[in-house]
Amino acid sequence: MPLAPQDAAKRAAATAAATLVQSGMVVGLGTGTTAAFLLGALAARVQDGRLRITGVPTSHRTAAEAVRLGIPLTDLTADIRVDLAIDGADEVEAGTLNLIKGAGGALLREKIVACAAQRFVVIADRSKCVQRLGDLAPLPVEVVSYGHEVTGRRLADLGGTPILRRDSTGAPFVTDGGNLLYDCRGFAPIDDAIGLAERLASTVGVVESGLFIALAAEVYIGDESGAVQILRPDR
Amino acid sequence: MPLAPQDAAKRAAATAAATLVQSGMVVGLGTGTTAAFLLGALAARVQDGRLRITGVPTSHRTAAEAVRLGIPLTDLTADIRVDLAIDGADEVEAGTLNLIKGAGGALLREKIVACAAQRFVVIADRSKCVQRLGDLAPLPVEVVSYGHEVTGRRLADLGGTPILRRDSTGAPFVTDGGNLLYDCRGFAPIDDAIGLAERLASTVGVVESGLFIALAAEVYIGDESGAVQILRPDR
Repeated sequence: MPLAPQDAAKRAAATAAATLVQSGMVVGLGTGTTAAFLLGALAARVQDGRLRITGVPTSHRTAAEAVRLGIPLTDLTADIRVDLAIDGADEVEAGTLNLIKGAGGALLREKIVACAAQRFVVIADRSKCVQRLGDLAPLPVEVVSYGHEVTGRRLADLGGTPILRRDSTGAPFVTDGGNLLYDCRGFAPIDDAIGLAERLASTVGVVESGLFIALAAEVYIGDESGAVQILRPDR
Repeated sequence: MPLAPQDAAKRAAATAAATLVQSGMVVGLGTGTTAAFLLGALAARVQDGRLRITGVPTSHRTAAEAVRLGIPLTDLTADIRVDLAIDGADEVEAGTLNLIKGAGGALLREKIVACAAQRFVVIADRSKCVQRLGDLAPLPVEVVSYGHEVTGRRLADLGGTPILRRDSTGAPFVTDGGNLLYDCRGFAPIDDAIGLAERLASTVGVVESGLFIALAAEVYIGDESGAVQILRPDR
């Protein structure tokens, strides 16, 4: 069965970025539908012996998939140097390449791994490209479970319209770190992403926001024909 | 057996602050040796029917003690308005009444409750009073367990000398929220507590620092004679 056009675009970006991965590297492995294509591309080379890498998964889900595919894994401990991390994004802002991430529920570990990596590369299809952050996606904010409703009110005070994320059963969605997520519309258009990121970080009860500022070294944008455009930030 | 002088001073402060608590209030209950005297003072009035309150505990430990003493408890949910929170501190800075907290391991919930309260009152003996934060105590910083060694390196980059807190068995001390604590000397003297709090908050992997800035409305300082001095911030 042929891939849906958006999936073909995701696969194109993932496959192109996978060529950056070389034997001996420690590689941060993202979470989500685009990152899943990355894992597939890497696994094909790992399984036939062409590629020897160690993966640092950004979620339990990615870890399970990597194990299934035969990609060796390690934890992010003191002696681990992450050479390269590759992950998807919900939004990529034109020019800055600042990101919104978190739709997949793994923003905290994704950000920790992205920050720990020598180089962070984003893979996406063109639908993720926006002029200003917040144009399409809500901003996920990971908060401590304890007192989360009070924290949610504080997000509203900052201008957001926070909605507690729920799982398919209707229960609050719990992250790998045991926290909760508020998906916040209302901040858009996010004209001052740096300032908003700082205000959110300084809000008691907030663990981390989905704003990834000045982290992406390159963004690989795939299209359904298989073509890939590589973006670098205007700095 | 008479109390040790420092304990008499703690009890004096706690007993004086307990008089602020009136029937019908929802009261944030701190954690630690000084807060334990507060619970005792409140429990005496609750048990003989003079005081009807609902407590919001800041730790599992305080919750267990409150239950033992017969103080009714509630969670910090959306419909809870915390009238007053009372808690100890590791350091109280002269003039600003900015605090270092976290030696008891409960800084995250303590801060969430203090921020949620209409009024936050600190109880301490005089040994906690410092000219500048960091003069005596290390600064505790609560961090996400995942990748904590990388986060610890980042605390060192900010100028701290982070030491992972361990429990009596030598294992990493795990907070009520499932996180870890780095006790950081090296920041002292903390001349710019606001700036340091912001830098720590913006550090990926940091959940919350033990800097409590502009939160204390009053600080009750007890001495061993039973006398209590009430400090208010210079603002």
